[in-house]
Amino acid sequence: MTSTPLGDALSRLNTPTLLLDRARMRGNLQRMANHIRNLDCVLRPHVKTHKSKDVLAEVAAAGNVIGITVSTLHEAEYFFENGQKDILYAVSITPNKVEIAATLIKRGCALTVVADNIAMAELVAARAWELGVVLPILIELDVDGHRSGVDPQGEDLLPLARAIAAADGALLKGVMTHAGESYACPTLEDIKAHANLERDRTVMAADRIRADGVECPVVSIGSTPTAVMAENLDGITEIRPGVYTFFDLFQAGLGVAKVDDIALSVLTTVIGHQPAKGWVIVDAGWMAMSRDRGTEKQAVDQGYGLVCDLDGAPLGDVIVGAANQEHGVLMARDGAPALDIKAFPVGAMLRILPNHACATAGQYDIYNVIDGEQLTGEWERTNRW
Amino acid sequence: MTSTPLGDALSRLNTPTLLLDRARMRGNLQRMANHIRNLDCVLRPHVKTHKSKDVLAEVAAAGNVIGITVSTLHEAEYFFENGQKDILYAVSITPNKVEIAATLIKRGCALTVVADNIAMAELVAARAWELGVVLPILIELDVDGHRSGVDPQGEDLLPLARAIAAADGALLKGVMTHAGESYACPTLEDIKAHANLERDRTVMAADRIRADGVECPVVSIGSTPTAVMAENLDGITEIRPGVYTFFDLFQAGLGVAKVDDIALSVLTTVIGHQPAKGWVIVDAGWMAMSRDRGTEKQAVDQGYGLVCDLDGAPLGDVIVGAANQEHGVLMARDGAPALDIKAFPVGAMLRILPNHACATAGQYDIYNVIDGEQLTGEWERTNRW
Repeated sequence: MTSTPLGDALSRLNTPTLLLDRARMRGNLQRMANHIRNLDCVLRPHVKTHKSKDVLAEVAAAGNVIGITVSTLHEAEYFFENGQKDILYAVSITPNKVEIAATLIKRGCALTVVADNIAMAELVAARAWELGVVLPILIELDVDGHRSGVDPQGEDLLPLARAIAAADGALLKGVMTHAGESYACPTLEDIKAHANLERDRTVMAADRIRADGVECPVVSIGSTPTAVMAENLDGITEIRPGVYTFFDLFQAGLGVAKVDDIALSVLTTVIGHQPAKGWVIVDAGWMAMSRDRGTEKQAVDQGYGLVCDLDGAPLGDVIVGAANQEHGVLMARDGAPALDIKAFPVGAMLRILPNHACATAGQYDIYNVIDGEQLTGEWERTNRW
Repeated sequence: MTSTPLGDALSRLNTPTLLLDRARMRGNLQRMANHIRNLDCVLRPHVKTHKSKDVLAEVAAAGNVIGITVSTLHEAEYFFENGQKDILYAVSITPNKVEIAATLIKRGCALTVVADNIAMAELVAARAWELGVVLPILIELDVDGHRSGVDPQGEDLLPLARAIAAADGALLKGVMTHAGESYACPTLEDIKAHANLERDRTVMAADRIRADGVECPVVSIGSTPTAVMAENLDGITEIRPGVYTFFDLFQAGLGVAKVDDIALSVLTTVIGHQPAKGWVIVDAGWMAMSRDRGTEKQAVDQGYGLVCDLDGAPLGDVIVGAANQEHGVLMARDGAPALDIKAFPVGAMLRILPNHACATAGQYDIYNVIDGEQLTGEWERTNRW
């Protein structure tokens, strides 16, 4: 299919395996770093997308980063052991996790956690106090009905702030939110409006807490769509996008990235055909792509992924239209002409762009890194809890 | 929530984590072993569901097992290194994987591979010959239009059999199929009919090859639904179910298992509530459950999983109705009364039954094993390729 040095190097890899295009990733990281700097704000990037110290080194190199955001305490332990000291654990902590958090704090980690209700805040503060530490806490706000969080305009906010400020084992550091409903915005104008809503409601919550006489230094927001579309971050002290590191088909479908920005792909090999159906079977099924079908409800349904040649160029309307555990079925998108299966001989290798970078990367322990025309080696990734 | 010894032990685990009920698994394994023995046939169980030497020891202890089926060569290496010598790799092999297969064969592994077209069979046979081994090959049949395989009634079968028999680096061992469309059967009677179709078409293909003067000793079929519903396996030399080891909500939805047979669950902790919506938020999102929504098109949609108390008893109509990466949203099934969120205080622990055991288990590296009222320890699991 190809005779480039990169193609030759890729053809020696076992499939399926995960590829990371370093130049694309660097472009994504630099654009975001510059954009947020231009808005006089700083990044606390979410590392749940990549879970890799090697990727984090690139994130840091792009600049304008004051710490990281993690989705699990396992990530916090991993990144702390790899030199990262300022860490926000952005999923509500539970009593059975306080000991892990306390151990990190005692080892010197500036770990902050989140809570959205008095019962949990008091439980975890009491447990922290028992263990001899004080937990820095951000109040999680629900700005758009997405999932967790307290209403920034509601009556539960100030009692929660006072309870955290008053608890022996807790320190109120501020407020945070994740405007997850930005993922459901139909147009870029809607995302822009959602970014304003995320900022305004979060700043309002901080102002209410301050007017109540409680300190609220941190005002933290973030999702990739709202970060990309933000035009004004006045009052915000940090922003926490994550998937912008790699981007994916879902973000391209939202319009906040181009398909050519997507830095992750899955390398696969053609294993057979069903000529009567116009199907090409490859060795990347849902275990290799993840079960994420996030583009299903977007204007362009990408199946389980968009198929590219070995150099990464998309092949028009060829998608992974169906998937079993270790089998992917390439087919033409609905309405497009059937595949010319002769163009996909057995043994040929292809690349597949993922719907959702976090989910697909979660199926692997390593990244095969491509830098320009070279396959430069493997970067590690950590998973689990 | 509970004061049983098991509940106390579970409450000390970090969440989310994967639980395996050994007694339920043993029941599943023994019923299948007896059922297939009663049909005068033997099992070559698929290990892709569990990927664990410890689980395989239980599979073997249930008896009537002549070898294993794997979905990746990584599984083949892992199980060979753990004492398993007779292994069928049931996904079409590719030229870039022959070296791994050849190495296993040279180390003494009785490894068999599959192929469904002459081009691939000749490519891999040539590569094997170059590497100094002969590859035992089963021809993969397409009995129900599910994905890969050659038509058992079509004109491509005999030329493929002759080509494999004639190739220096290959040895034709027989035929195999996977009746994957059994997963789409609406009733048990349909699955029974599908089991007959799987058997009849596979035996017919073997008979055609033999009538053509080529040996065809192995006649291999298998899917969990058709294995459970099989009434007659005349002419079949082995059957390869996998997910019956653990079962899951999808199989229960098909009717080939009871919910009480499901041996896997995810342990989770309540992290908060959205009282106005009747939502309970837990720390098991789609990273913990997988993105599999296989029950979505069944009569009963189980969301991302069915919620149970800490002892494993289902809580009626409570499901994981929505999921983010690390957040699960418990809600009442459509049409059922809203949750009484006071019954789910923050910090409470619950168990969630999975839609698809293969996908959910794939999100973990270990099983926390429950035996009766004891938490007996961790069993390992291998992932990747």
